[in-house]
Amino acid sequence: MLGTRGGWRALRRCFSSLPREQRVPAARLRVREALGAREAAGKVKVQGWVRSVRSQKEVLFLHVNDGSSLESLQVVADPSLECRDLTFGSAVEVQGKLVKSPHKMQDVELQAEAIHVVGPCDTLSFPFKIKERHPLEYVRQFPHLRCRSNALGALLRIRSEATAAIHSFFQDNGYVHIHTPIITSNDCEGAGELFQIGTSQEAKKSVEKNHFFNVPTFLTVSGQLHLEAMAGAFTRVFTFGPTFRAENSQSRRHLAEFYMVEAELSFTESLQDIMQVMEHLFKTATSTVFSKCPRDVELFHKYVAPAQKNKGRLEQMLKNKFVIISYNEAVEILKQASQTFTFKPEWGCDLQTEHEKYLVKHCGEVPVFVINYPYDLKPFYMRDNEDGPQHTVAAVDLLVPGIGELCGGSLREERLPFLESRLQRLGLTDAYQWYLDLRKFGSVPHGGFGMGFERYLQYILGVDNIKDVIPFPRFPHSCLL
Amino acid sequence: MLGTRGGWRALRRCFSSLPREQRVPAARLRVREALGAREAAGKVKVQGWVRSVRSQKEVLFLHVNDGSSLESLQVVADPSLECRDLTFGSAVEVQGKLVKSPHKMQDVELQAEAIHVVGPCDTLSFPFKIKERHPLEYVRQFPHLRCRSNALGALLRIRSEATAAIHSFFQDNGYVHIHTPIITSNDCEGAGELFQIGTSQEAKKSVEKNHFFNVPTFLTVSGQLHLEAMAGAFTRVFTFGPTFRAENSQSRRHLAEFYMVEAELSFTESLQDIMQVMEHLFKTATSTVFSKCPRDVELFHKYVAPAQKNKGRLEQMLKNKFVIISYNEAVEILKQASQTFTFKPEWGCDLQTEHEKYLVKHCGEVPVFVINYPYDLKPFYMRDNEDGPQHTVAAVDLLVPGIGELCGGSLREERLPFLESRLQRLGLTDAYQWYLDLRKFGSVPHGGFGMGFERYLQYILGVDNIKDVIPFPRFPHSCLL
Repeated sequence: MLGTRGGWRALRRCFSSLPREQRVPAARLRVREALGAREAAGKVKVQGWVRSVRSQKEVLFLHVNDGSSLESLQVVADPSLECRDLTFGSAVEVQGKLVKSPHKMQDVELQAEAIHVVGPCDTLSFPFKIKERHPLEYVRQFPHLRCRSNALGALLRIRSEATAAIHSFFQDNGYVHIHTPIITSNDCEGAGELFQIGTSQEAKKSVEKNHFFNVPTFLTVSGQLHLEAMAGAFTRVFTFGPTFRAENSQSRRHLAEFYMVEAELSFTESLQDIMQVMEHLFKTATSTVFSKCPRDVELFHKYVAPAQKNKGRLEQMLKNKFVIISYNEAVEILKQASQTFTFKPEWGCDLQTEHEKYLVKHCGEVPVFVINYPYDLKPFYMRDNEDGPQHTVAAVDLLVPGIGELCGGSLREERLPFLESRLQRLGLTDAYQWYLDLRKFGSVPHGGFGMGFERYLQYILGVDNIKDVIPFPRFPHSCLL
Repeated sequence: MLGTRGGWRALRRCFSSLPREQRVPAARLRVREALGAREAAGKVKVQGWVRSVRSQKEVLFLHVNDGSSLESLQVVADPSLECRDLTFGSAVEVQGKLVKSPHKMQDVELQAEAIHVVGPCDTLSFPFKIKERHPLEYVRQFPHLRCRSNALGALLRIRSEATAAIHSFFQDNGYVHIHTPIITSNDCEGAGELFQIGTSQEAKKSVEKNHFFNVPTFLTVSGQLHLEAMAGAFTRVFTFGPTFRAENSQSRRHLAEFYMVEAELSFTESLQDIMQVMEHLFKTATSTVFSKCPRDVELFHKYVAPAQKNKGRLEQMLKNKFVIISYNEAVEILKQASQTFTFKPEWGCDLQTEHEKYLVKHCGEVPVFVINYPYDLKPFYMRDNEDGPQHTVAAVDLLVPGIGELCGGSLREERLPFLESRLQRLGLTDAYQWYLDLRKFGSVPHGGFGMGFERYLQYILGVDNIKDVIPFPRFPHSCLL
């Protein structure tokens, strides 16, 4: 029951008459190895959900899918095996012979001897209809059922592979995986609006004091500060988990709950090191996903975003070095632009979405690192470049076509006096005593970055709305299920 | 900078004079391959934190650790290289030659030519003292620094390897990884007290209405129901993420925020299938951790819990099949026990910790599956066994020595009429309409389980308190950092 997907092991199981608990799901049979096999006259039992039913005079065609790939297995049966419950969306168990298919479109097909409808589907009230390509906006209304559509099925397989690829990348490079906390008592990292936590009891009684944890607690906006604590003992650490923003944004790039990949490197004195890891991570994960899920990725590149993203352009991008420009250069480019911006580009102001878009276009629609941002724009933990008169910190943002900011990183201020004076000015010395401790006891130059995982998926697949790249999107006014 | 840990590639980098950004951290040099290498006369630069300083007349000994292993690298230097800041806890960069060590205890050592203190350590206020073995309770007070102790360093490396092993197990067996949501609007799964979520604004104004999400929302207690939705399109899915309980428990086995590994399998009609995956997962992950982190695991088995857990017993356990008994049998065993229990064992009552302990002892201090629990004890989603007069559901708990319940699982009620009538009796039909939908559209027999990740680590390492196996423990009255 726990066989490796595909390959000869799967095949051997397919072709022997197996006990109930070892039956092989449908799409496992569509492995390439099955085609050339001489044992193809053996009997198999497959299980899955019906994606199409086509009844002809002489023959009944079914397509059965079990979620292990985009392709379904074609089942060929005698029309006498048809029954009322055998509809689109129903769950079936089919017994028969696996044979080489006479059709070009598939390697193998199943000649059915018996079809058992395990679970019928009430097609009238089922929100998806046979052979219709429902828009993503439509299927989004049914978070409990949309995984049964081709697009979301493909997306979820890709998301799973991308997650695994990211984990492998860090593991292969000697990083220690740290589960940074979800509930935190840090409330002032400056990364946006926070969700606060109470017990159901507290919520009912509107109790302000007597917190469960004695102090007010929040959902984390980033694991960075906790990772930094760990970077005082391990030279490379990473985390990959949910983060939260209580911002009332309905944009196609924001969620209230989203996933972040974050890494922290000790004994690192240059932004270059951090950017190298960002670029390496991005390219390694993307190459892995493209090679592991070619059909699923193709669905997106062909049908979901054929105009914006073509695979060729992405593959070209994977070969070239990412562009690096400084914030100062970015402002100059924007000032010289023929385009009129809603927000006038000015040194000392944040880059707006329109600016990011222009910069990416200016550089040739490729990923662009922007480095060394104004000191006053960035949070207290970023390392002072001690330059002037235009005072900057060692920060970096990675901008990508169609999305804007994909990653953000910086060197961290490891020098105790610098950090102390900044926290003092902000009135945060008491709250961040523990963070100052990290600089009192064996402080080292270090830095790190975070990458928004959903934006990453949006970018490599060309998906317009972030709500379509996460299984259960949470955003203002919506928390279905 | 991104080399694979250890091996010849690392070695080659060690022995060439590298630019700043490619320096190799200390413990990388302790790879076995370094010992036999002829290039061992080359020059290297290592970075890490000082674990000990021993100054003799003729020679200065340092131990430098960079978190990549329990072992530190011995540095041998001329006493003239000593300086005031070169203390326990300081961060250093040492340049010199890597040579074969004359001592039995280590393969290689570094003959220092230059020592640079990157970050001094204020040893007076540093809570850890040189060469002292601080109790776990003591280091627990310093969540931002305790990763620098041997025990927590080892624990965090093991936790990272165990996480990777669990991901690999599921990936190798064709499971799709699903990020189930942290914020959920399900409030009545019956798994315990919930944390409720609001924005900081809502908390300040004690606003009961105008929720950010329009409905009351909570921190998830389990990803199961969301995984079940996915099991309607994929035959195997899993999740591995944080879950929450707002229970006011100070026990050594409970946390307010902890990690759960959960899996769901479609087309599964027997508890046996579920138990097989549980056992396979447990054994695969444990074997991987034992073989990948032998020294780190040894620290726990030798010094932290030598009496309770010895490696031999755990290894024996990995070879044997886990015991399976029914709830009915369990109650009979308890009734016949010579021991007097605080809670009298009686059919229909929950098994208490004292009962679980006795059962595990009775079976020979090995993992024990208890199956088929009373219908009235278990949540609505568990599958009715339709037996009697002692009416049960197809539930399973895995009990292990020293911990009690490690995993819980069940077949789920896939039959619409059964589920409808149970939800109706509980008045939950409206809230779980989406869950009923899963049974209306291609329902299949399915089941799954959850394993508490921290309890798993407690068990395989013999760690008494759950607060010592998670980087940042959250429990009543405590949310440090």
